[in-house]
Amino acid sequence: MRLKNVKNAKEKIQSSPYIIENPLNYNGKYKQLFKNQNPIHIEIGMGKGKFIIDMAKANPQINFIGIEKFDSVIVRALEKLENIQLPNLRLIRIDANCIDEIFSKEIDTIYLNFSDPWPKKRHEHRRLTSDIFLNKYETVFAKEKKIVMKTDNRKLFEFSLVKFTNNGYKINDVSLNLNEDVILDDLKNIKTEYEDKFLLKGYNIYMVSVNK
Amino acid sequence: MRLKNVKNAKEKIQSSPYIIENPLNYNGKYKQLFKNQNPIHIEIGMGKGKFIIDMAKANPQINFIGIEKFDSVIVRALEKLENIQLPNLRLIRIDANCIDEIFSKEIDTIYLNFSDPWPKKRHEHRRLTSDIFLNKYETVFAKEKKIVMKTDNRKLFEFSLVKFTNNGYKINDVSLNLNEDVILDDLKNIKTEYEDKFLLKGYNIYMVSVNK
Repeated sequence: MRLKNVKNAKEKIQSSPYIIENPLNYNGKYKQLFKNQNPIHIEIGMGKGKFIIDMAKANPQINFIGIEKFDSVIVRALEKLENIQLPNLRLIRIDANCIDEIFSKEIDTIYLNFSDPWPKKRHEHRRLTSDIFLNKYETVFAKEKKIVMKTDNRKLFEFSLVKFTNNGYKINDVSLNLNEDVILDDLKNIKTEYEDKFLLKGYNIYMVSVNK
Repeated sequence: MRLKNVKNAKEKIQSSPYIIENPLNYNGKYKQLFKNQNPIHIEIGMGKGKFIIDMAKANPQINFIGIEKFDSVIVRALEKLENIQLPNLRLIRIDANCIDEIFSKEIDTIYLNFSDPWPKKRHEHRRLTSDIFLNKYETVFAKEKKIVMKTDNRKLFEFSLVKFTNNGYKINDVSLNLNEDVILDDLKNIKTEYEDKFLLKGYNIYMVSVNK
């Protein structure tokens, strides 16, 4: 994502009720924060937040937490939330590498949308579906482990299918042309900002849902 | 595949040294037939045989058995073999449903190339990657179980990914655009008749290799 310097991003983030400022303090206690026992879904790399905000609106019985590392991006999500009350949504500004330090056995589903493909072999470990990250997710997940991934990057998708299945995940749903599959049932697929752009350009979008 | 009536197909098949006429007699004894201890790979639905003949030529240290149910198709493969000696190749004319009656714990790899997609939901059990067939293959396989599949049919491919992984298989290699991936290394991918045609037409070809 191209990053622009957003004026006062840090201040805007600090003053927002959506932001969890000290996520380390909530490790293992996010249900207390939401004040209910509903399942918790997270999106790692939420970008400007369209997907997670729309998911939170559409699913009030689920709690959502969006994770993003860049101030200048997370502030765009906050702008979208300015006049909206969504008690089932929070955002955390942190690097994905720290995911296993802020959650313990309390997440039901992880969404990975249009993650950085890190195309070079030597950067493979940085992909969010590498063995390193799949190991971190083990710490994060409650009982059932579910990951839902969307990408336009074929090589990242192929890599992820291999990694998922070699880490014990089974595929419960897959589409190799999501646009064609959801064209008649648009509501089933809540889109990210990237996805909207890519669909307009006619890019192929891949989706897989795995669990173990 | 469009079937033409081939004159004397039955006689041509009966007189060919490549054909195993009574495969029930060889159940559990195919290594004796090949007179060596080399691994045995089979192709279910070999059609006119281009793939399995080229595989047998390229891999003399592996025994190959092509399975096809139609006389009029298998006879086309025999025509290709008329002036060739391939001691590591045999063909069997039988319905794929009988696969578990003719092999017992002796096959190392199964190839499924451009299998009938049986698109209707009520015909799902006829697809060669349905639970029914994956169960039959359990009887057929020796120790390591490996299936290599190629198809141009997206829905069959998606169905198969779900079925493989829910039957304990892991993906060890996958390509969602085989043409693009092997363009620089054509020898890696021995092609079927269908594949040659489909590539010319610019169709997308999917490949997956799974094992357990």
